Amino acid sequence: MVTGEPSVVPAVESTAEDISEMRIRGAATIADAAAAALATQADRSAADTPAAFRRELRTAARTLYETRPTAVSLPNALRYVLRGVDGDTVAALRTSTIERAESFQRDLAAAQDTLGEIGANRLRDGDVVMTHCHSTDALSCLEAALESGTELEAIVKETRPRKQGHITARQLREWDVPVTLIADNAARRYLDRADHVLVGADSIAADGSVVNKIGTSGLAVNARERGVPVMVAAQTIKLHPDTMTGHTVEIEMRDERELLSDEERASITGAADADGADGDGPDAVATDDGLRVENPAFDVTPPRYVDAIVTERGQFPPESIVTLMRELFGETTDEPWET
Amino acid sequence: MVTGEPSVVPAVESTAEDISEMRIRGAATIADAAAAALATQADRSAADTPAAFRRELRTAARTLYETRPTAVSLPNALRYVLRGVDGDTVAALRTSTIERAESFQRDLAAAQDTLGEIGANRLRDGDVVMTHCHSTDALSCLEAALESGTELEAIVKETRPRKQGHITARQLREWDVPVTLIADNAARRYLDRADHVLVGADSIAADGSVVNKIGTSGLAVNARERGVPVMVAAQTIKLHPDTMTGHTVEIEMRDERELLSDEERASITGAADADGADGDGPDAVATDDGLRVENPAFDVTPPRYVDAIVTERGQFPPESIVTLMRELFGETTDEPWET
Amino acid sequence: MVTGEPSVVPAVESTAEDISEMRIRGAATIADAAAAALATQADRSAADTPAAFRRELRTAARTLYETRPTAVSLPNALRYVLRGVDGDTVAALRTSTIERAESFQRDLAAAQDTLGEIGANRLRDGDVVMTHCHSTDALSCLEAALESGTELEAIVKETRPRKQGHITARQLREWDVPVTLIADNAARRYLDRADHVLVGADSIAADGSVVNKIGTSGLAVNARERGVPVMVAAQTIKLHPDTMTGHTVEIEMRDERELLSDEERASITGAADADGADGDGPDAVATDDGLRVENPAFDVTPPRYVDAIVTERGQFPPESIVTLMRELFGETTDEPWET
Amino acid sequence: MVTGEPSVVPAVESTAEDISEMRIRGAATIADAAAAALATQADRSAADTPAAFRRELRTAARTLYETRPTAVSLPNALRYVLRGVDGDTVAALRTSTIERAESFQRDLAAAQDTLGEIGANRLRDGDVVMTHCHSTDALSCLEAALESGTELEAIVKETRPRKQGHITARQLREWDVPVTLIADNAARRYLDRADHVLVGADSIAADGSVVNKIGTSGLAVNARERGVPVMVAAQTIKLHPDTMTGHTVEIEMRDERELLSDEERASITGAADADGADGDGPDAVATDDGLRVENPAFDVTPPRYVDAIVTERGQFPPESIVTLMRELFGETTDEPWET
Amino acid sequence: MVTGEPSVVPAVESTAEDISEMRIRGAATIADAAAAALATQADRSAADTPAAFRRELRTAARTLYETRPTAVSLPNALRYVLRGVDGDTVAALRTSTIERAESFQRDLAAAQDTLGEIGANRLRDGDVVMTHCHSTDALSCLEAALESGTELEAIVKETRPRKQGHITARQLREWDVPVTLIADNAARRYLDRADHVLVGADSIAADGSVVNKIGTSGLAVNARERGVPVMVAAQTIKLHPDTMTGHTVEIEMRDERELLSDEERASITGAADADGADGDGPDAVATDDGLRVENPAFDVTPPRYVDAIVTERGQFPPESIVTLMRELFGETTDEPWET
Amino acid sequence: MVTGEPSVVPAVESTAEDISEMRIRGAATIADAAAAALATQADRSAADTPAAFRRELRTAARTLYETRPTAVSLPNALRYVLRGVDGDTVAALRTSTIERAESFQRDLAAAQDTLGEIGANRLRDGDVVMTHCHSTDALSCLEAALESGTELEAIVKETRPRKQGHITARQLREWDVPVTLIADNAARRYLDRADHVLVGADSIAADGSVVNKIGTSGLAVNARERGVPVMVAAQTIKLHPDTMTGHTVEIEMRDERELLSDEERASITGAADADGADGDGPDAVATDDGLRVENPAFDVTPPRYVDAIVTERGQFPPESIVTLMRELFGETTDEPWET
Repeated sequence: MVTGEPSVVPAVESTAEDISEMRIRGAATIADAAAAALATQADRSAADTPAAFRRELRTAARTLYETRPTAVSLPNALRYVLRGVDGDTVAALRTSTIERAESFQRDLAAAQDTLGEIGANRLRDGDVVMTHCHSTDALSCLEAALESGTELEAIVKETRPRKQGHITARQLREWDVPVTLIADNAARRYLDRADHVLVGADSIAADGSVVNKIGTSGLAVNARERGVPVMVAAQTIKLHPDTMTGHTVEIEMRDERELLSDEERASITGAADADGADGDGPDAVATDDGLRVENPAFDVTPPRYVDAIVTERGQFPPESIVTLMRELFGETTDEPWET
Repeated sequence: MVTGEPSVVPAVESTAEDISEMRIRGAATIADAAAAALATQADRSAADTPAAFRRELRTAARTLYETRPTAVSLPNALRYVLRGVDGDTVAALRTSTIERAESFQRDLAAAQDTLGEIGANRLRDGDVVMTHCHSTDALSCLEAALESGTELEAIVKETRPRKQGHITARQLREWDVPVTLIADNAARRYLDRADHVLVGADSIAADGSVVNKIGTSGLAVNARERGVPVMVAAQTIKLHPDTMTGHTVEIEMRDERELLSDEERASITGAADADGADGDGPDAVATDDGLRVENPAFDVTPPRYVDAIVTERGQFPPESIVTLMRELFGETTDEPWET
Repeated sequence: MVTGEPSVVPAVESTAEDISEMRIRGAATIADAAAAALATQADRSAADTPAAFRRELRTAARTLYETRPTAVSLPNALRYVLRGVDGDTVAALRTSTIERAESFQRDLAAAQDTLGEIGANRLRDGDVVMTHCHSTDALSCLEAALESGTELEAIVKETRPRKQGHITARQLREWDVPVTLIADNAARRYLDRADHVLVGADSIAADGSVVNKIGTSGLAVNARERGVPVMVAAQTIKLHPDTMTGHTVEIEMRDERELLSDEERASITGAADADGADGDGPDAVATDDGLRVENPAFDVTPPRYVDAIVTERGQFPPESIVTLMRELFGETTDEPWET
Repeated sequence: MVTGEPSVVPAVESTAEDISEMRIRGAATIADAAAAALATQADRSAADTPAAFRRELRTAARTLYETRPTAVSLPNALRYVLRGVDGDTVAALRTSTIERAESFQRDLAAAQDTLGEIGANRLRDGDVVMTHCHSTDALSCLEAALESGTELEAIVKETRPRKQGHITARQLREWDVPVTLIADNAARRYLDRADHVLVGADSIAADGSVVNKIGTSGLAVNARERGVPVMVAAQTIKLHPDTMTGHTVEIEMRDERELLSDEERASITGAADADGADGDGPDAVATDDGLRVENPAFDVTPPRYVDAIVTERGQFPPESIVTLMRELFGETTDEPWET
Repeated sequence: MVTGEPSVVPAVESTAEDISEMRIRGAATIADAAAAALATQADRSAADTPAAFRRELRTAARTLYETRPTAVSLPNALRYVLRGVDGDTVAALRTSTIERAESFQRDLAAAQDTLGEIGANRLRDGDVVMTHCHSTDALSCLEAALESGTELEAIVKETRPRKQGHITARQLREWDVPVTLIADNAARRYLDRADHVLVGADSIAADGSVVNKIGTSGLAVNARERGVPVMVAAQTIKLHPDTMTGHTVEIEMRDERELLSDEERASITGAADADGADGDGPDAVATDDGLRVENPAFDVTPPRYVDAIVTERGQFPPESIVTLMRELFGETTDEPWET
Repeated sequence: MVTGEPSVVPAVESTAEDISEMRIRGAATIADAAAAALATQADRSAADTPAAFRRELRTAARTLYETRPTAVSLPNALRYVLRGVDGDTVAALRTSTIERAESFQRDLAAAQDTLGEIGANRLRDGDVVMTHCHSTDALSCLEAALESGTELEAIVKETRPRKQGHITARQLREWDVPVTLIADNAARRYLDRADHVLVGADSIAADGSVVNKIGTSGLAVNARERGVPVMVAAQTIKLHPDTMTGHTVEIEMRDERELLSDEERASITGAADADGADGDGPDAVATDDGLRVENPAFDVTPPRYVDAIVTERGQFPPESIVTLMRELFGETTDEPWET
């Protein structure tokens, strides 16, 4: 922290550390903790002028923000709360901050269930749903439908390289949904049997693009070609306000070993010792053995291949999601925690 | 063999058995052996009338055919030879049969190299080629290009569930081609870097559809969407004449364990003992644990997503391949080995 | 009505009965009556506390709503008025309710004309407009254009099974517009001569889908293929707020006799007495004579085949209509008349 | 007939008159009669030189051709026979003509059955087939499939204006196929349930276009959009060789009363006496009452919306049908019966 | 000016004249001057009642508006300022008008830079950008990217007939960007090398259509076909609020001599004296020499071919731009300067 | 010529020199001269054995071929003649060669007229045809249509950089066709008025691709998007047999000064002396002033954007042209003039 900055209350520091150390993790959990920390800051602030109060609050927000600047739900929580801070006195500011934080937390707690009920309304009795990867938002739609008595079947793509489809399959089997597990390569063939493609989102951009697990965009293109509608389930904390100002979403490259074991690598390159990739971190590795493995975590689905984005605030065509983004998080290109 | 049928020479029986027992396997090897067996039958026939000679030859063909009626190269070889049997005397018939068989075998021996040179002509220096599965016909195009000094790079899809992409990668590395290995799910993202999609074919239908390793059709749809041309490399023994009469190509369903190990199955279903799939053969298994695994070996790519089929007889738009099929194997709906 | 509910003024009961008995019918007429009834309720309420006033108003709204819960304009009217009820005193609440209802009624009265002028602006002199079914909103666009001196021609699809195209044709002939009447099957051929496709809407969903007379979606797909823009004319009372929460629009199945007379049925099935469908109501009928007749009233056109939705509030790309829906009717998933 | 022309045998004159008077009608019946007449001409010719024989035969062909120059099967029959006339002596010419005619007649007699078997091979157990209009070629495919034990269901478009769908429905019910009858406008909605679209053809052009009952092209565009393959069943006598030389197929305009009864017309135009269309023949009628009714019999489906054309000579992608056309009927732009 | 209208201050008259005489020109310059004039009117108004003040202000706005009713930025400026006029006293009205005008001018001054930074965020190091025509908004994106260290290359279409591509090329060369200049006809070929298409806009319609230099729409269609995203850079003063009410944007036809010199015309028509076009103004000229030259300045790109519209208020999918338009300029169909 | 090769007659040497020196030029003229030279070689050969005769003929062919190996009509002529050389004696070989050459020359002389008549059949009275560049094959279609009384209008793209559209316009004006001249950039806008796009071809590839003047492919993509059919007029000497074996067609890069004058270049780069491009031949020039000008002569239109290729042998879907290519020029990958 820069010297001379207003001090923040210890609870903020502690939350920041927990996020930074990944003791607090998961999009919703982080967002909740960040909002709570701002409320605590407001509650315990010793500021004696509105300006001082605001300065402290901004500092608290910045402190939190800097722990994980790429986690989209964190700045969303901060931005949402700060936008509602209003008042001419410290007392009024305090109250409005706390109320805004609590409102955010309340909405967040209910969001997945609400979203699930909305998504469930798109499903009809007997529908077959094809899934990709594992998304609790997406599953929440299926759960709500099942709870209201809709019978469903699922075609679950295994989702190489990490096979998160197995987690989805297990959850669906617990709910007693008949599951057909297929290789990702078999998706186009089985789209002929599917009534919906249902996926979650890692984040959603202002131009309506959906950033989600690698393979989503190829699936969506094929779904359009086969005439199957694509539904994306995503809480609004997944909306990515930076993209309103043109920022593109950075795609994480993951460890090549998820895709290729050392033994497999050796067998391909004929190397006695497949240590080319050692210690190089999770990024794609260009070794001098001429074999490069690239393992991007996500891809980007253009809005024209998505039929609806289901959030807890209702469903939207992807081309309209920017309107919700502006409503929730404001438009400004300056971060609200900047001075 | 039905009683009363003309006898065939022992070499035919022996070849038939070798094919049946899979001691002779692989599309080209089977075709070669079948043509050779017909030549031997012609050479050693003791028939004393043209009619008797022809009867014997048909019987020999039927004997061979019945060993593996679904292997597309086998009837193609038989059909090709039988179509060239011509003459009014036993001697003339014998000669024409042998010559036709030898011509077939000569062409077959040269086919992959010829095809490779033709396919190589479509590649330009610096091109990046995306592959799916493992196809020696496809690799032959790359080899010919490399030999003529064209520099290439490859993006190799791993091709779940059997990861034949690793074999392709290994071969390309032996030829010193820079390889980027990706998950099948990453294909659309990497199509932006590819100049060609190059695949082989299991068989090719009269309507121009390409039957190939599961995942080909989804890749081809995405390649069209991304503006990347799709080249299919396939010797003419892969053409499927039955499809001229509307027959569809049966898609083999493979063992679910290629996709899901018993441990993985147990972990999904929560079963103590994952023996649901035991002893059920390679087809998709619907167990009463509610989890069905489907593992089709191939899919069907419509001709509108393929730019060229490269054979040893030249390259063809898929919509024209039926013309070549008719030229090589005739039109008749009756099998030439039927009485 | 549940015992213990606040009583509503007799005028509300009477309006509710008229709607229920279909003495009041038609989307706009129903909406107008509902708003008027709420104003009357406000005007005559004997409530002495704001809370009591609000309770009564909600009860009135619910009473009205329950008469025809599937008529989209009815809840829209209620919702619109209730959203504007504001004030801390009974007097203020009364005033705001009445003003809001009047404002709704005023807008409603002007809506079709306003919409017509907006739609007319999209038409140029000499344009040929293809119509489907009969829609006074759509015709209002043509009327406004004609009144401002634009010369137009029309290609009118007859619109089986009920041939509402004849009504459209008659209206257009009264306005002296040259009309070419065609079978629905001839639409693609005549699209080459059309400059616009112009249709109304039964309702419009939050995902931008247009629910309209069966045949609209097939026409729109062909219009896109032929390069002809598709304009949908629809007053905002056709917006379907339930769809914001994922609800799909129920498609009415109509009497099979609209499609197939009893004589025609007998001639197909060879039955002596074609009474299979007797007394089964308007739904599709699966008789045991193996002939099923399905006669859905509407279909759903995805937003990507619609170029503009013209409302009295301006024209919108279909993907943006959700924004207008939220502005007019709010976002909440709870009905405002629920306690 | 031009004076000085070689005389033809009376049987030719008689056949010509029967065709002209429509005592012989239907594509296949006309073609059969024309081939038979040429055989008779050859059989009974008194020509004493090959040149005289050929002159007579050409005259016979021309005589027949001129009776119905727009019936596509008639010139096809003539062309096919004349192409096979070969020999250096009158005797040889006679024999070859008769043999060629008989071969044509034999093929013709078997064509629909053969075609049906080929088309049936494209259908799988449980498939749902959507039909348009009534085509015995198309029904032959269904019949062959049913006979081989394939279970099918049908969605039958009624096919306004003449409702030939009722004939199709009746035939299918006789074969005990479950039928769902729908309005043409409902096609896109029901394509979601269909596995195939199956239609016949009035004629097929060299560029692969299919001329068929009005409504076919709009259906095919929607079928492609919904991912449903389109199969066209057509005997080779439907191939239209004139189109090889760029000729377009003239589309017949039918009587407006098929579409609009006089009463309906009067009700639209408000005329006391709707006699505007009297005595104007079957073409579109532009009356001065400003209401024009257009009732084209056929439309043209571009090859890119058709997956396969099934003929008795095998199935073809539409883009390859020109090859078959050239093989059967030759290439020349001059009619073979011209001098 | 109509007699009896309230007088406006001389500065307004003077600005109006400067705009009318094109001494003030350019979308931003006109907008700035108009806002300033309204501020001056407010500042110097001698009105003694709020109503009088408002009347004067409306008259001032109308005076300005009528100088160039088709320049989209002029009514936008007026509309924006008038929407913010608020207050119950002359003093309050004066203040709010001035503040609103200043706010508009401030935003306007910053708009291009802000927009540039937003657009720059869409560009990555090493990207190749294809441009059409010359747009300072578009170049602002490139400039911002270059300033932040992003390396770019450009493919510049020359943009016949006026070759504004040369201006773009010169600017890019000054910034040291490697430029490849191509004919417009070569665009599809070079799209294979491009990562973005970047254009400006003349105006943007409520249905998401982009009106821009002729050739933009053809380029955008090809970019979609080749998989290259299309970015439109446009300040919000380019939004065209009239289109919210369905008005289409009038496309200016320019002097045919931009396309065809008199000498070229004479050489085509063989005329001794090519004076057919003399004195006919800039519109398309249909001379009696049978040669018509049409030279439209702009064309209309449908929203489905545009990926993002970048404004100083953020980037938007084209289908959402109507939301921003309504926010900035209101919805009303009546011009705010009308009485 | 390699020492030891058989000598060719002087007329062959002389023709070869004329072609090489471009005294003989133009696709048809070259082809005609080459066929004539082979006939002369056959006529005057002193060979006394068939083998010697054939050797001489091959040498003659090779001599001619090597003068312009990239002119597609030259090898086509040679290949066509050599394929017809047949006989067991020198006399028979001589006769067959001469006859084959004469037949080729006869067909060639008639080809453009025949093609024109075929193309004309696709045009209907009142049609509007959009042209690109200048093609005598394409114009032949229009001429034939006009001669048969069809009224046509033309929209002529100017075709930068060389403006060959002016030549087309002049020719059409001589035929009294109303012409609208437009910039290439205006094509999409005017496609709404066009009934056909009609272009010629530089060459046509075995995969159905059309190589034609730069800009053709972009036009064809837009024509498909606008629903306008694309007709390519090309004599069969434009078919490119090398492409059957996968060879791609080399695209000529032309002098950058066609696109950018030295003055224009200087004005862009700010150079005092724009001599960067001096003496570098017609290829694209990368000067160190950072401005590269690329001026490709042709581009490649994929078959899916072409509706028909009109040749003197009939019209073909582009996907079938390979069949004609094989019929005319054979399949072999070895050049017939090679030993």
